Amino acid sequence: MVRLTAKLMDIDYPGLMLNREDARKIGVIDGGRVQVINEETGVFASACVTTTETILEKGTFGIFYKTNERLMAREGSVLEVRIASRPLSLDYIKKKMDGGKFSKEETNAIVNDIVNDVLSPSEMGAYITSSYINGLDMDEVEHLTRAMVATGDQLKFTSHPIVDKHSIGGVPGNKISFLVVPIIAAAGLKIPKTSSRAITGAGGTADLMEVLAPVSFSASEVQKMTEKVGGTIVWGGATNIAPADDKIIIYEYPFKIDARGQMLASVMAKKFAVGADLVVIDIPVGQHAKVTTPEEGRKLAREFIELGERLGIKVECALTYGESPIGHAIGVNLEVREALWVLEGAKEPNSLIQKSTSIAGIALEMSGKAQAGGGLQAASDILASGKALEKMREIIEVQGGDPKVMSEDILPGQFYHIVKAPESGYVVEMNNHALITIARAAGAPHDRGAGIYIHKKKGHRVEKGDPIFMIYADRSWRLEKAVETARQLMPMIVEGMLIDRVPSSYWRGTPE
Amino acid sequence: MVRLTAKLMDIDYPGLMLNREDARKIGVIDGGRVQVINEETGVFASACVTTTETILEKGTFGIFYKTNERLMAREGSVLEVRIASRPLSLDYIKKKMDGGKFSKEETNAIVNDIVNDVLSPSEMGAYITSSYINGLDMDEVEHLTRAMVATGDQLKFTSHPIVDKHSIGGVPGNKISFLVVPIIAAAGLKIPKTSSRAITGAGGTADLMEVLAPVSFSASEVQKMTEKVGGTIVWGGATNIAPADDKIIIYEYPFKIDARGQMLASVMAKKFAVGADLVVIDIPVGQHAKVTTPEEGRKLAREFIELGERLGIKVECALTYGESPIGHAIGVNLEVREALWVLEGAKEPNSLIQKSTSIAGIALEMSGKAQAGGGLQAASDILASGKALEKMREIIEVQGGDPKVMSEDILPGQFYHIVKAPESGYVVEMNNHALITIARAAGAPHDRGAGIYIHKKKGHRVEKGDPIFMIYADRSWRLEKAVETARQLMPMIVEGMLIDRVPSSYWRGTPE
Repeated sequence: MVRLTAKLMDIDYPGLMLNREDARKIGVIDGGRVQVINEETGVFASACVTTTETILEKGTFGIFYKTNERLMAREGSVLEVRIASRPLSLDYIKKKMDGGKFSKEETNAIVNDIVNDVLSPSEMGAYITSSYINGLDMDEVEHLTRAMVATGDQLKFTSHPIVDKHSIGGVPGNKISFLVVPIIAAAGLKIPKTSSRAITGAGGTADLMEVLAPVSFSASEVQKMTEKVGGTIVWGGATNIAPADDKIIIYEYPFKIDARGQMLASVMAKKFAVGADLVVIDIPVGQHAKVTTPEEGRKLAREFIELGERLGIKVECALTYGESPIGHAIGVNLEVREALWVLEGAKEPNSLIQKSTSIAGIALEMSGKAQAGGGLQAASDILASGKALEKMREIIEVQGGDPKVMSEDILPGQFYHIVKAPESGYVVEMNNHALITIARAAGAPHDRGAGIYIHKKKGHRVEKGDPIFMIYADRSWRLEKAVETARQLMPMIVEGMLIDRVPSSYWRGTPE
Repeated sequence: MVRLTAKLMDIDYPGLMLNREDARKIGVIDGGRVQVINEETGVFASACVTTTETILEKGTFGIFYKTNERLMAREGSVLEVRIASRPLSLDYIKKKMDGGKFSKEETNAIVNDIVNDVLSPSEMGAYITSSYINGLDMDEVEHLTRAMVATGDQLKFTSHPIVDKHSIGGVPGNKISFLVVPIIAAAGLKIPKTSSRAITGAGGTADLMEVLAPVSFSASEVQKMTEKVGGTIVWGGATNIAPADDKIIIYEYPFKIDARGQMLASVMAKKFAVGADLVVIDIPVGQHAKVTTPEEGRKLAREFIELGERLGIKVECALTYGESPIGHAIGVNLEVREALWVLEGAKEPNSLIQKSTSIAGIALEMSGKAQAGGGLQAASDILASGKALEKMREIIEVQGGDPKVMSEDILPGQFYHIVKAPESGYVVEMNNHALITIARAAGAPHDRGAGIYIHKKKGHRVEKGDPIFMIYADRSWRLEKAVETARQLMPMIVEGMLIDRVPSSYWRGTPE
């Protein structure tokens, strides 16, 4: 039996560290798994091990911060460290590598091991890769969804229906939740919307909402706020709702994969966990969106609907135009300002208003708040009446923000650059990826003032010298970087002519 | 431009740590990659990032030990930290996920990124999994082999031929290198043998050799020693020969996969890097070995031969009997003692002598030191003459060990347990995996005295009460654990009767 003295180490992820000699005595290799028995609390931790010859004295071992959150060992305590039995999840992942199918129990075991940090990053890489290559069928997706829900917190509302919406993403400027959520809540329905921060985008809904109010709440706080005002717009990452999902997505990101089964489970687990009865899924279709053809979009829609049926959730999907950004604004403050404009009564931008009221309208029809075919009008009426603005202010207030905030309070960055049309003609192409890359180069989403404001979208006529788009930044070097990126990427094309660089001018003001 | 103050952190692997706020400013997420520009040395480091809100002060960042080996930053220096461009390797791995083929340049890029710790563990997991599932064809295997060689040290001998051998593994007790290497060197050939430590086994050749002499040398030291005495038995892990391979294997281990393409490249890269002209590959075939059927063995042999042709190496393969352990001993000291017995003139165990002289004989024929069909006899003559023992002593001495060591100096563990036949009959089954598991439970390979000595092998007649095998250990609690493991696994079966536990007795002595 090997007993070692604990040294708490300020490393913010799961792990243990052993002296090489102790590791050999225990019989564990680099990257292997050991158990630590903490007799005080009775719990044990399984974690990856790295060994060192020089750093830790023989007889001591290091416990990283995340592992000690579960182990709760005290500095200097003497604990038994033994080799851990091999997690069965590894056999199941191996089975998937060889083309097999996960059973319900196997999926549960894997998701448990993910949530408890039993699987190492390389094993997670093998899990997502084998699931991506060999796929998950609908049984496996259902089991994965249920396992993700079961390993996290859940909302339990006493009155129903509960509504939710989700956008698949890939389209810049998609701030529709800022209109859809208050419209639905203003209709008397409950919509506990959890949303994400940007990983690859210029600003997730959670990043945007944070401009107006705090977004980090526990699941039970989300439930209470929703019961009080009908809706929330919070950051899902803070809720412990379907926590396995966050741990999976992080490993998909480097490869830009969004494996179909994983994505279905990810979306629906969050809806199931908040207790949703009715869900509208927005599937943008476009050359540069995640879904590139209507056929692909319809196939995905059918899968969402089938998964919903298995979970007892009524799902409707809307295939939406995903070729161009929604509205004119991309970037945190620019998007929040644009959404507030519309809530405050602006009749523009049409793409944002149409899309938001269409999606909200579907939910109103599903819930019986509007009759079939009347949802869009009902949603438009709520928006025009000012009730959506009023509801949004209640949501901001319940989350701890200032309900009196106005669009004019939200300012874009002080540094900006105008890109003008080099020739007269029509805008024939816009590249969503390039626009996002430029906004990120300008500092989005960290720098809230950073982003892009598009004056002329695809199909619009421009005269030589007209502003086509503007780049904003909070810091001048960021602006320079974004302008340079824009020159390289050429995100918009006027009648086949590439847009050239126009002498830049830096001054303070708003472009409206 | 974000400049942060360096804090060197005693973490023995590659990595950096950022304060969450700084990470957002730089635009990098958990697990993302940043570059650090060290102006003093001009180098940069790409590494995975983890962020923390509490541990690192804003404006400071942590550099882990392995990363600083390359970066060479000083504590407290202020360095620019920027988001790293996405490694192109990730696109190539994604291509393999989607069923594509790696080009030569893509393979080179991946192997370079592996060696320089640019790929994170999860990305390594994705690499090995996609290569395993979608396979590598012979072009890809050749490119991988060459890239592994090019990213490490190589031996350049001025006189030839250079001989090498490799055993695919999976058979316990396979200590044949201790006979093959000195026989070949005693014949006047050069054999710079690098070998591995046990990962899943009871003792790798490097673990065994370490009982007799140091095994950690640089590539140039291996070359010098080989030039001096004709052969070496060293640990490959210390040489920086094909270092990518060690970084790949570690991620295959949890899934017990040994992807064909990866394995071919792994073996042949080491042979190519030591400058081998003639290579004998031992492919054990047996129910519990890595290769389970002769057909599979022949297919693998053809692939080794083809890869050899592409690399300009003459390869011959021997399909060997892999149903039972080689010799009687499993575990470090027990195996070394058994090998020395044979070198010192013992006529037993036949399985060890026959296999070693057969493999050595093939190399003698390939090199022209023996005529076709005369290799086995030539090798047996060298062994019987005492020249192999003499050569082994030279090898031990050149590596810094005591050349006067005798088999009787090498003792098994002081604690042991005898498993006796519960009935008279024939041994009808032996399970290699179970034997290794028991030896490891007893403490092998860390505890050198731990292991198993088999008295009766498959097909042998036993009378009730005869010892079938013995378990040795250096520590009593290890012995207890191994005995318990043996009871569960039942590694040997006498005529369909399960072997039961026999009251154990602990005393000191040798079983011979």
